[in-house]
Amino acid sequence: MLVNGTHHRSIWRDAQNGAVRILDQRWLPHRIDIATLKSLDDFATAIRDMWVRGAPLIGATAAYCIAEQMARDPSDAALVHAVDVLNATRPTAVNLRWALHRCQSELQPLDPTQRSDAARALAEEVADEDVEINRNIGVHGLELIRKISATKPDGAPVNIMTHCNAGWLATVDWGTATSPIYHAYDAGLPVHVWVDETRPRNQGALTAWELGQHGVPHTYVVDNAGGHLMQHGQVDILITGTDRTTASGDVCNKIGTYLKALAAHDNGIPFYVALPSPTIDWTAQDGLGEIPIEERSGDEISQIHGRGPDGTDLANVTVTPEGTNTGNPAFDVTPNRLVTGLITERGICDASAGGLAALFPDRVE
Amino acid sequence: MLVNGTHHRSIWRDAQNGAVRILDQRWLPHRIDIATLKSLDDFATAIRDMWVRGAPLIGATAAYCIAEQMARDPSDAALVHAVDVLNATRPTAVNLRWALHRCQSELQPLDPTQRSDAARALAEEVADEDVEINRNIGVHGLELIRKISATKPDGAPVNIMTHCNAGWLATVDWGTATSPIYHAYDAGLPVHVWVDETRPRNQGALTAWELGQHGVPHTYVVDNAGGHLMQHGQVDILITGTDRTTASGDVCNKIGTYLKALAAHDNGIPFYVALPSPTIDWTAQDGLGEIPIEERSGDEISQIHGRGPDGTDLANVTVTPEGTNTGNPAFDVTPNRLVTGLITERGICDASAGGLAALFPDRVE
Repeated sequence: MLVNGTHHRSIWRDAQNGAVRILDQRWLPHRIDIATLKSLDDFATAIRDMWVRGAPLIGATAAYCIAEQMARDPSDAALVHAVDVLNATRPTAVNLRWALHRCQSELQPLDPTQRSDAARALAEEVADEDVEINRNIGVHGLELIRKISATKPDGAPVNIMTHCNAGWLATVDWGTATSPIYHAYDAGLPVHVWVDETRPRNQGALTAWELGQHGVPHTYVVDNAGGHLMQHGQVDILITGTDRTTASGDVCNKIGTYLKALAAHDNGIPFYVALPSPTIDWTAQDGLGEIPIEERSGDEISQIHGRGPDGTDLANVTVTPEGTNTGNPAFDVTPNRLVTGLITERGICDASAGGLAALFPDRVE
Repeated sequence: MLVNGTHHRSIWRDAQNGAVRILDQRWLPHRIDIATLKSLDDFATAIRDMWVRGAPLIGATAAYCIAEQMARDPSDAALVHAVDVLNATRPTAVNLRWALHRCQSELQPLDPTQRSDAARALAEEVADEDVEINRNIGVHGLELIRKISATKPDGAPVNIMTHCNAGWLATVDWGTATSPIYHAYDAGLPVHVWVDETRPRNQGALTAWELGQHGVPHTYVVDNAGGHLMQHGQVDILITGTDRTTASGDVCNKIGTYLKALAAHDNGIPFYVALPSPTIDWTAQDGLGEIPIEERSGDEISQIHGRGPDGTDLANVTVTPEGTNTGNPAFDVTPNRLVTGLITERGICDASAGGLAALFPDRVE
């Protein structure tokens, strides 16, 4: 999508020298910084320390990493090592495992001399597929927004709430939860987005930045505000992304999603989850029991990053008393009973085993 | 309660010169700073800009303000003016209106020459009553914790979640939601407190500081984490304070309380609200429809205050993109159907008109 009016993906090969570039998301929305990833360590650090983030983008980044490693050393040992290192970076996102499995199963049977070219093509394929998947999520999700818009007085916006950043910065392009929003905006429907701050990492600031770059009207609120806004009729639809969805439609997403889902349910507001099918974990049925939840560093809670007093320098401030004990689970699971529907690249379905199986008869296990 | 091992109230008269002192809560938990309030403007600023905060402490501060103003000018005009100015500082807290109404109705009938002494005595009475009310809330709430503790294996703590700061810093002493916790800790029951960060003002840092000063084990988490912790059996009871409770038991409290109440309800966890009876608005029945919700400055959201990189200087960082539109409702209303019970100074009752009327037959309108 747009950065200063020019189209960008979140990961790409440099047109001149073929190097893998990313928007280093540690500095957004405060500074636009492009990083080059080369070594296995570069890529693992970028995924682990969230220079890139969002399940689909993590998957694409892993595929680019495998391509870069195969260009240097296409041996079996190097392939297995790269897959192992990358697999260990983020425990919750299922796309990472999906992308690595795909790379390994396509490259392993090849003669090592063929692996570099094949891995390079595969990375582009993974990235292009992600773009096309997200574009289709937008096409299907647009219809939900169009229906709500038709019930509104002329010119009144459809109020959409979202949590975390499930925008194009979390994918290769378009985003998942934001794709219906961008499609609606581009189709001329009046929309307004409530952007959850999304503590502890404040990814709402990324969503606000994205929407601002595209011109979509939005309001940034703390995570605590959503229930109140829903009680007072200020939210028409809740749309989030997901890091992993079970075959039964349980949704694992950024911590706090479950609370918003409860509030939507309590106020009769539809809650849709936008998901590329690679985020479906066909082996899991019970999200609460089966999905490991990553516990991240307490520094993410006690320290907050932003622009310093002069408005340009970036700085951290510590908000907790010295030595305060912190807990930082990064995700939660929303049971399928609280999810109105799943927006996938193949269409919209119920958040249930039957709903998913009907759309993906070729995938269900 | 304790500050560096010495007992403090949150507002007091200096033993030497009688000046009104407060712990200036803008700098806590980072710096212990004592401010002196004299003029009407001092007091109004301290309440509006949250040098003092919490419904009971705001009420007591208003009473001290009236005393200071009457010492200078005990005229009818000065009394009415002070009441009007203070009334306008914070629209949601009902104690403010309760304390001002009490001051005005007791002082107005007096001859102006008697008002200064009477107002001074009244301020002490309001403060002492608050301490005694909160002590009694703790005595009653202790029994809830004791019952849960009895169901636990030996030495396993009762896990209590709280939102915002309903601690002694929000009252004159003891706190409301924290009073049962301090009583349980002092009685030797093992307790552990999940402290919600409480965006946007991060009052959880105050709660963490309080609990740390008293030695109570606690873990600071983002507001988003509570649902996940409840889903996984890590919370035994949710206890919050309230800024205003309707005669029907609807609870208006810091924004985000409603989301925690939904999660407690969804997971079968009891949710108790600790409240001094002056926070009951006997004239209101429908919390959602009748309680005005204060909309505060967006700077509270976009800027975050804490200790700078050197660990001592205090600094602000800006977390949102330049020019981001923000919304900042300060409170929300939890309908009585989600509240297990109300802990008052007279005992515990159902969150209902009948429950409150049975405990306060002398107050119900």
